[in-house]
Amino acid sequence: MFVSRDEEPAFAGADWGTSRFRLWLMDKAGNVLAERRSDDGLDASRASGFSQVLECHLAALGAPANLPVVVCGMAGSRQGWVEASYVDIPADPATILAASARIIDTKRDIRIVPGLAQQGAKPNVMRGEETQLLGLVHGKPGFSGLVAMPGTHSKWVHLEGGRVSRFSTYLTGELYALICSQSILRHSIGAAAESVDADHPGFATGLEQALAPDFSLLGTLFELRAAMLLNGQGEDEAAAKLSGMVIGSEAADARAKAPADIRTVQLIASGRMERLYRKALGAAGFDCETVDADDAVRKGLHAAATGLWFSSRKETA
Amino acid sequence: MFVSRDEEPAFAGADWGTSRFRLWLMDKAGNVLAERRSDDGLDASRASGFSQVLECHLAALGAPANLPVVVCGMAGSRQGWVEASYVDIPADPATILAASARIIDTKRDIRIVPGLAQQGAKPNVMRGEETQLLGLVHGKPGFSGLVAMPGTHSKWVHLEGGRVSRFSTYLTGELYALICSQSILRHSIGAAAESVDADHPGFATGLEQALAPDFSLLGTLFELRAAMLLNGQGEDEAAAKLSGMVIGSEAADARAKAPADIRTVQLIASGRMERLYRKALGAAGFDCETVDADDAVRKGLHAAATGLWFSSRKETA
Repeated sequence: MFVSRDEEPAFAGADWGTSRFRLWLMDKAGNVLAERRSDDGLDASRASGFSQVLECHLAALGAPANLPVVVCGMAGSRQGWVEASYVDIPADPATILAASARIIDTKRDIRIVPGLAQQGAKPNVMRGEETQLLGLVHGKPGFSGLVAMPGTHSKWVHLEGGRVSRFSTYLTGELYALICSQSILRHSIGAAAESVDADHPGFATGLEQALAPDFSLLGTLFELRAAMLLNGQGEDEAAAKLSGMVIGSEAADARAKAPADIRTVQLIASGRMERLYRKALGAAGFDCETVDADDAVRKGLHAAATGLWFSSRKETA
Repeated sequence: MFVSRDEEPAFAGADWGTSRFRLWLMDKAGNVLAERRSDDGLDASRASGFSQVLECHLAALGAPANLPVVVCGMAGSRQGWVEASYVDIPADPATILAASARIIDTKRDIRIVPGLAQQGAKPNVMRGEETQLLGLVHGKPGFSGLVAMPGTHSKWVHLEGGRVSRFSTYLTGELYALICSQSILRHSIGAAAESVDADHPGFATGLEQALAPDFSLLGTLFELRAAMLLNGQGEDEAAAKLSGMVIGSEAADARAKAPADIRTVQLIASGRMERLYRKALGAAGFDCETVDADDAVRKGLHAAATGLWFSSRKETA
């Protein structure tokens, strides 16, 4: 599909998280015209003032003073710029966007996309991922299926007719990092934590363990230390096995809880993380359709902008 | 049983761990005549010199210059005083004690009890707990059964005919502490981590979740944060639920892996920890026979001393 590229931006989209800030100027069709990335996360931005940080980056890209801006991520949390309260699922895109928080003390139109909440016996929240899901549904209207969004707090999302019906959060990335850097296993893993390759045999071993019936992560972790003490197991091997165990635990549980007829997962991830999860999900019996994580954020911001400002107008395409 | 108390000590026993040091003077029957407790763990003792630290505490208790000393714990690790290499299981008490490391540059007879190693596909090690097991078997010769030793690294030990046949380690205590103090859940738990009571309803809720089929610790932890954000769940409640989830995960896995005919567990624990585990193991279907943890260490050191020095002599009793 050929998409013409406007020379003038139609909006700016920002992914504003706890530790980083990313900004794109896009045209109405979602083509990226300019980009900024910085470490202006929440803490840094609170000190300088959120409005000032945003305007500074917009100015650096030459954005017009009336360019509207849509923001997703932790900037909409209680600790952020303005709280965009969680919207209960299930909610369609229009309902979600209607609940955006509008910044009132600025000249330009700035909206923050709200997160989603799952009420009830299995309470859960997401903030930031909902925007990627808006992008996915914008590209596949009425989509039903399973979406995996690996990370510090991995999200597994069930969509039905383009709306989130339920989701889970796995503390996989955070626990992996804590175990590698803070637990007794740090002596067995050293600096190998961040370089595990999906093709390392230890990763496959860890996956196999985690996917076996009756696997207990809590009851297996210490074996990584014992293998070092008794067999001289190296740090790369320990890190790869640990990575396989934790990602495999996530995949095994997601498989156990997914409806039997769901085989395909939309995997929103990039780079090394994408390779690790593709391998783990494959071992758990899923087929993966990968969506690049960066691309998913931009598509989501474009979908949000379209819903907020352009949907009733004719697209220039 | 009446046991006479000698006025003179027959030996000293020390439990010398990473962060603390405990010393008892005992008579041949294992009666405690004097006690010292201090923070002279491995790091502190390495700087001052292990021999000097021990002699200082012995002198404070008025121990004779020729009193033999038996030591258990991390003092026998590679980072300790002298390495007492792991003995492969299964090993009977005599074999374990014969592998004790003897300190050669001191006038008195000082031995360090070695740890135990499980070789093979499920490598594991223990150091310190083997001495408590020696005490248990000394009191119940030829004991067969299951022993739970909760802690930072909980041990579950299968004994057959007085010898360890296999064991597992659960990182329960360490992960609980890391999650409470370092993870995103620290904002939901605050200072409540160390005061969870076994009677808190949240503890029962956490246990129930963990003991249900298909429970995933990795996939449930974040619900504690969501419950705070969405329902205002308090810190006590979050800590109690988390404690129930992690201890319940350990109990559920131990139950799944124990032979069906084993219902009784020797639970070596004290105080709050004993109450939490007794409740968790009960919920998992075990009956508990509690052995006080401090008492188990002293009985173990006495059993070791008896095996090392007194077994061929007539007991004064």
